[in-house]
Amino acid sequence: MSNPKVAIVGAGLCGSLMAIYFAQRGWHVDVFEYRKDVRGVDADAGRSINMALSHRGIEALKQIDMFAAVEPYMIPMKGRAVHMQDGSISFQPYGTQKNHVIYSISRKVLNEILLTAADQYDAIEVHFEKKCLQYDAINQILVFEDQQSSKISQHQYDYVFGTDGAFSKVRKALMKKDRFNYSQDYIPQGYKELCLPCSDDGNFLLEKEALHIWPRKKFMLIALPNMDGSFTCTLFLDYDGQPGFDDLNSEDQVNTFFKREFPDAFALIGNVSEQFFANPTGSLATIRCDPWNIDNHVLLLGDAAHAIVPFFGQGMNASFEDVQLFFQQLDQVGIDQAIVGFSKLRKKDADAIALMALENFVEMRDSVSDPSYLARRKIAQKLEKENPDSFQSRYTMVSFTSIPYAEVYQRGVENQKIIDTYILQNKAL
Amino acid sequence: MSNPKVAIVGAGLCGSLMAIYFAQRGWHVDVFEYRKDVRGVDADAGRSINMALSHRGIEALKQIDMFAAVEPYMIPMKGRAVHMQDGSISFQPYGTQKNHVIYSISRKVLNEILLTAADQYDAIEVHFEKKCLQYDAINQILVFEDQQSSKISQHQYDYVFGTDGAFSKVRKALMKKDRFNYSQDYIPQGYKELCLPCSDDGNFLLEKEALHIWPRKKFMLIALPNMDGSFTCTLFLDYDGQPGFDDLNSEDQVNTFFKREFPDAFALIGNVSEQFFANPTGSLATIRCDPWNIDNHVLLLGDAAHAIVPFFGQGMNASFEDVQLFFQQLDQVGIDQAIVGFSKLRKKDADAIALMALENFVEMRDSVSDPSYLARRKIAQKLEKENPDSFQSRYTMVSFTSIPYAEVYQRGVENQKIIDTYILQNKAL
Repeated sequence: MSNPKVAIVGAGLCGSLMAIYFAQRGWHVDVFEYRKDVRGVDADAGRSINMALSHRGIEALKQIDMFAAVEPYMIPMKGRAVHMQDGSISFQPYGTQKNHVIYSISRKVLNEILLTAADQYDAIEVHFEKKCLQYDAINQILVFEDQQSSKISQHQYDYVFGTDGAFSKVRKALMKKDRFNYSQDYIPQGYKELCLPCSDDGNFLLEKEALHIWPRKKFMLIALPNMDGSFTCTLFLDYDGQPGFDDLNSEDQVNTFFKREFPDAFALIGNVSEQFFANPTGSLATIRCDPWNIDNHVLLLGDAAHAIVPFFGQGMNASFEDVQLFFQQLDQVGIDQAIVGFSKLRKKDADAIALMALENFVEMRDSVSDPSYLARRKIAQKLEKENPDSFQSRYTMVSFTSIPYAEVYQRGVENQKIIDTYILQNKAL
Repeated sequence: MSNPKVAIVGAGLCGSLMAIYFAQRGWHVDVFEYRKDVRGVDADAGRSINMALSHRGIEALKQIDMFAAVEPYMIPMKGRAVHMQDGSISFQPYGTQKNHVIYSISRKVLNEILLTAADQYDAIEVHFEKKCLQYDAINQILVFEDQQSSKISQHQYDYVFGTDGAFSKVRKALMKKDRFNYSQDYIPQGYKELCLPCSDDGNFLLEKEALHIWPRKKFMLIALPNMDGSFTCTLFLDYDGQPGFDDLNSEDQVNTFFKREFPDAFALIGNVSEQFFANPTGSLATIRCDPWNIDNHVLLLGDAAHAIVPFFGQGMNASFEDVQLFFQQLDQVGIDQAIVGFSKLRKKDADAIALMALENFVEMRDSVSDPSYLARRKIAQKLEKENPDSFQSRYTMVSFTSIPYAEVYQRGVENQKIIDTYILQNKAL
């Protein structure tokens, strides 16, 4: 097979990154995307518009020399700014070293940079507005509907990569196979995005270099900075709790709730109830499946293989790391073996970050305002500062290293015992 | 709504039972079945052809006066006949009372009895060879393809019940809804059915009134008696273990494996390798989802809602109990509330029996030949015999009572502590 035919379904963050990895190795790839070219359209209102880029994502960008192009659009977030109900704000740094920083970046801008980079390669052809209807795994044929003409087209490929997100169409071909394990688990909370604008003179109205959290135990508001001086706030709240989305049905109810729970954010956002009813409420699920391939000809990566909740800021980072690790395998053992072996290699790490992302929701909405949690966190940071080679906090390992997620999880469990011992020996707490 | 239109999709065991429950309450129901009328066709080779009927299934049959019709076809199994590799056989009674018996019954015969009973009601119309293509939940329209004419037909119903099994088409409508939780988890083992024939003069070649087990730790063979003097044997074995289905590729390999592991069964079956390659290998999954309804107009019951592995012999019994409990609700609160509330009521029990069925595989293939397990089992039976009101084994509660499965699970955990205490106090073991 001198010129194998390769298709990537989905030109989002994961798919467009993958195309560049292929092109840099001299492979020709066709990339199919359901949506219009993101470069020609306004941002979707209410879609997750900024995200946290950290070590793993950065490493994957560096491998293809894309980091320099992305860096100017990254806003460092050095820690959490925790907003209490009484209006006080405390700052909790993320790490112990200068480079222990995560970065806010616009999903749209990052995708645009990757697509523009892809344009530089003759080997990459991106086909927009092609909706994948089906992947026929027996004949290895992809079926698309053109979103302009409604024309159906069929394409045979030797290798198909499904980077088409949590609701992957490519995954449906795997669902039809016997013995395909699959789960989708929604959490009881939904989310709603609201824009907190910049000041009239274009300045940030909250501390710029922080991820802001209003932890309220059962629910929370967060805010990430944007390049234009605004913040994107996201409310995470039960659908049918007290309070809950199902309960907030009038402008009055929404305003009363925000005024009570997030008085500073309420004042700064200005038109809370207007945005609240204009923007959709999104749901949040963990999607797990296994295996991620059929034989040696189709493979899922990124959210299509393992969608996770956003509370560790690792969805995109994990997807980018997938791509980097997949090409490491491809370089070592060839594409067929890389496809066949990838989920065996990576699945346990996807499961680990899925679990840690769920656990981190509790940390963000509740623990960050808990004195005992804060005391333990302080000890962890002290241990890490004094002896960074032998102790790293779970947050540090996830966000600032490439230690496989499954190993991070195990070491995180060990950490708790180490902190227990420290407390006993030092009579701390 | 004086004459609500009711459809049941699937005329297997659960759907045909449900139709009779409706008809006895004066409701008209249309029942749609993909397959031909089971009464006109031979049994599917290699499909699960007999099953264990116990208390919960029997109670559901009694509610509609169907038990008398079924009873003549039931073969009591009073316990496990455990076949060791050295040829020795030990008998382990299932319970402590005379009526602690489970019954082997043919799936086909039971389905035939229920369909014939359904024929007696003008209110029931069964439509065979109608393949459900889709349920359009927004317009409440069922779409079928006639398997003879290939004609497509559409039908509007007020209430749709999906009793169409583990690979339910009705469930696909629920999959399209936001926030539908779903999982399918395959176990690493597959199964293969083989017929152990009767003697030339029509007699049973193994003890008739027992469920036979050949426990071999990682795998096992079981056999259930049939009315014609034969047994249906089922081999449960890893796909890719040592040994495993993937390894047994020649007649020689199969015969060598059976001769070594199940010498008595091998001799009695006669043509093991011939049947082995003629019959399919089946996979085994647990399917969980939540909720089981959309609003008040569609509800899944039985395997469509909660398919489980067969190791507790409770798949059919749980489905039948679903039907009985659903109509208890319907009688009390009306059909709309019964549909809306059913999965809240029943889901935890479905989850509990799913888990117990998985755990029972370990018990059957391994523990039944373990001295420590047998000693604990003996204590449990002694406690149950001496004080049946305060102690019942988990097996007894599952198979011989209507205690909700979730409560059984909890009490089973308590039981282990009670047995621990007994051992300590009596220095038993």
